[in-house]
Amino acid sequence: MAALKRSPLAPKRFARLPQIDRVKLACASSGTGYRGRDDLMLITLPEDTAIAGVLTNSKTASPPVDWCRKNLGRGKARAILVNAGNANAFTGSVGVRAVSAIAKALGDILDVPPSSIFQASTGVIGETLEHEKIISHLSDLGERASEGDWLDAARAIMTTDTFPKLATQSFKIGSRAYVLNGIAKGSGMIAPDMATMLAFLVTDAPVAAPVLKQLLADVIPRTFNAITVDSDTSTSDTVLLCATGLAEARPRSVVHNLNGRRLSGFKRALEALCLDLAHQIVRDGEGAGKFITVKVTGAENDHAARVIGKAIANSPLVKTAIAGADANWGRIVMAVGKSGEAADRDRLDISIGGVKVARRGAIDPAYRESMLTRHMKGREIDIAVDVGVGRGAGVVWTCDLTHGYIDINADYRS
Amino acid sequence: MAALKRSPLAPKRFARLPQIDRVKLACASSGTGYRGRDDLMLITLPEDTAIAGVLTNSKTASPPVDWCRKNLGRGKARAILVNAGNANAFTGSVGVRAVSAIAKALGDILDVPPSSIFQASTGVIGETLEHEKIISHLSDLGERASEGDWLDAARAIMTTDTFPKLATQSFKIGSRAYVLNGIAKGSGMIAPDMATMLAFLVTDAPVAAPVLKQLLADVIPRTFNAITVDSDTSTSDTVLLCATGLAEARPRSVVHNLNGRRLSGFKRALEALCLDLAHQIVRDGEGAGKFITVKVTGAENDHAARVIGKAIANSPLVKTAIAGADANWGRIVMAVGKSGEAADRDRLDISIGGVKVARRGAIDPAYRESMLTRHMKGREIDIAVDVGVGRGAGVVWTCDLTHGYIDINADYRS
Repeated sequence: MAALKRSPLAPKRFARLPQIDRVKLACASSGTGYRGRDDLMLITLPEDTAIAGVLTNSKTASPPVDWCRKNLGRGKARAILVNAGNANAFTGSVGVRAVSAIAKALGDILDVPPSSIFQASTGVIGETLEHEKIISHLSDLGERASEGDWLDAARAIMTTDTFPKLATQSFKIGSRAYVLNGIAKGSGMIAPDMATMLAFLVTDAPVAAPVLKQLLADVIPRTFNAITVDSDTSTSDTVLLCATGLAEARPRSVVHNLNGRRLSGFKRALEALCLDLAHQIVRDGEGAGKFITVKVTGAENDHAARVIGKAIANSPLVKTAIAGADANWGRIVMAVGKSGEAADRDRLDISIGGVKVARRGAIDPAYRESMLTRHMKGREIDIAVDVGVGRGAGVVWTCDLTHGYIDINADYRS
Repeated sequence: MAALKRSPLAPKRFARLPQIDRVKLACASSGTGYRGRDDLMLITLPEDTAIAGVLTNSKTASPPVDWCRKNLGRGKARAILVNAGNANAFTGSVGVRAVSAIAKALGDILDVPPSSIFQASTGVIGETLEHEKIISHLSDLGERASEGDWLDAARAIMTTDTFPKLATQSFKIGSRAYVLNGIAKGSGMIAPDMATMLAFLVTDAPVAAPVLKQLLADVIPRTFNAITVDSDTSTSDTVLLCATGLAEARPRSVVHNLNGRRLSGFKRALEALCLDLAHQIVRDGEGAGKFITVKVTGAENDHAARVIGKAIANSPLVKTAIAGADANWGRIVMAVGKSGEAADRDRLDISIGGVKVARRGAIDPAYRESMLTRHMKGREIDIAVDVGVGRGAGVVWTCDLTHGYIDINADYRS
């Protein structure tokens, strides 16, 4: 198919990521996914790098996901290898052997244990991955890897993405400054339920793996798991968070304790970075023309609020109305009703673009559709719903459902 | 908006429904929903008619749904009144009072208790129903009602439907023959979870209300609840089943017993009729170009099979691939994985159009995409999935997701 036009919601410029000491990157065109662009990306990590991850809960998870799940328990990583264009999912025992063979080959080249090599594959499901082609590039990739270009790395992992997704944050632990870099990909098949699309986050801070794991588990429901493009959950969703600072730090400065003030800067940076990347994925949602924020309050608890938010954000009727710049709030009522979570029809409040549309279960007498004409024609749509039963709150982000989504998915083999 | 083009999946001709003794119909153009066509429909029923119903489980159910729920317990009906174009949903206390006022007015005209009058409203959510306009037509409707035209009745309840939906079955209880007539409407906002769209079924058999209720509860999961167009569940879903034969039958011939051979003909007729109407709703799915049957076997139980079937049938990626005549079975794997139900990735079998595509968790070596070209270009797509864990089975029906759906829903205020 023809190259996709860049999303109108793409950022004006991409974040420039600083180098991270001893974190090296390299890309190549392997021929297993795309022609004429890089589709293979390697990150190498220094000794003693801690890792934590969150993986898809799909019952048909891919062999690379299984591989990561098996090795995350050790909490140690020396490399991340990603290929784009072929998901190596539903490829039977051939796919499982491919993952082992790649890990062994790269382990030999880098002189590290295969279990410290994490892998992710994204693209078409069900086609055999030509893993020998990947292996034939590994030695060259290892030699070329340098502390350089995160932008190229973000580009090499794209599939139907129309722009590369990068973010960076700086923070302090005690008096020392650190950075947190992240890249992500994702555009369709986006409804991370317990995990997300591909995202790789690296910091030079000395934070132990169990702490990384807890922090990731805490932040993901409010960030990557709070976005949806099309309600479809990938077989390959993977977020990996690496911390390289452990080897260099004095033993007592390594953070093993989840609580306490030392970590507050990192926590803030991690949440901000995950949210930034998650929003970029929504802004690159297949066919997206509008970025939609759904705030739910008054729910039984925070989880219920997010379930209601997802019901609204996944409703094809809500998403098409917004694509048509139609403030059809009746469809929001419908979506709240189908969510299955407690809601009091007769206390329901709805605002769009800050304008109160419905109050206590019926149209607000002061509301006129003309008050929303301008907001609905814009690129950023804000929906706020109070369901009137409790104090639970949550925010979910999505995009509209347009002809562009149909164009991409009736033609693209993903 | 311009009139919608009739669905390419519409039946070649509509079923001709026989009259049912003392069941009278009339339609009118009330001006509350549509101009230039009937949008109000009355069915009057003879004394002692038994009724059972299944209603939406939406948490934002409409006042007419609440009204039916309140009165179904009595099991007696004398009339059904339906308006199209305005759902009288999320209309606050005004909407609740409208339903009472209509029931009282019609009760006075027909000289029956208001509680024996069942109502359904379908159309835009959140706009006040001009119930005085409806009331002003009731006396004329009551006078004109005759044992005549079910086709006009089916037309009067349409919203974005592109064709009227009718079905009839005949059956025997003992040696006596009876008929079962049904009409339905529905095209978008179709994902009945515990109920369905509007459907009104009438038989002249002498079957008691508790038996009707049980039969309906049994048949709905395999019929109306096994279809989906867009995963969106209406605030107004209503199925009512009426049996008029109780007054005339000798007391001992009224069926009070759910089991036993006397009811087997009626059970078969009811299931066939519900399935027929449910399929017609899918064939009129907004923008539908293809009718898709998803058969799931090997699940933990029948419910799990239907959940997996729905995950496939609701996946925008599966539905757009089929719209594009693309046998992209990797997306079926994805949808099985996201369903949350048990599935064994390495025992998964998938067939499309009777051609084995995947066997035991990987592509079938004999499969070539060219084997499916013709099937995928057709109007009827068959998907069969065995998830390899148990003996549960189920079938779900849906349609593809096309530009037509976006056209209708970005413009139509429903």
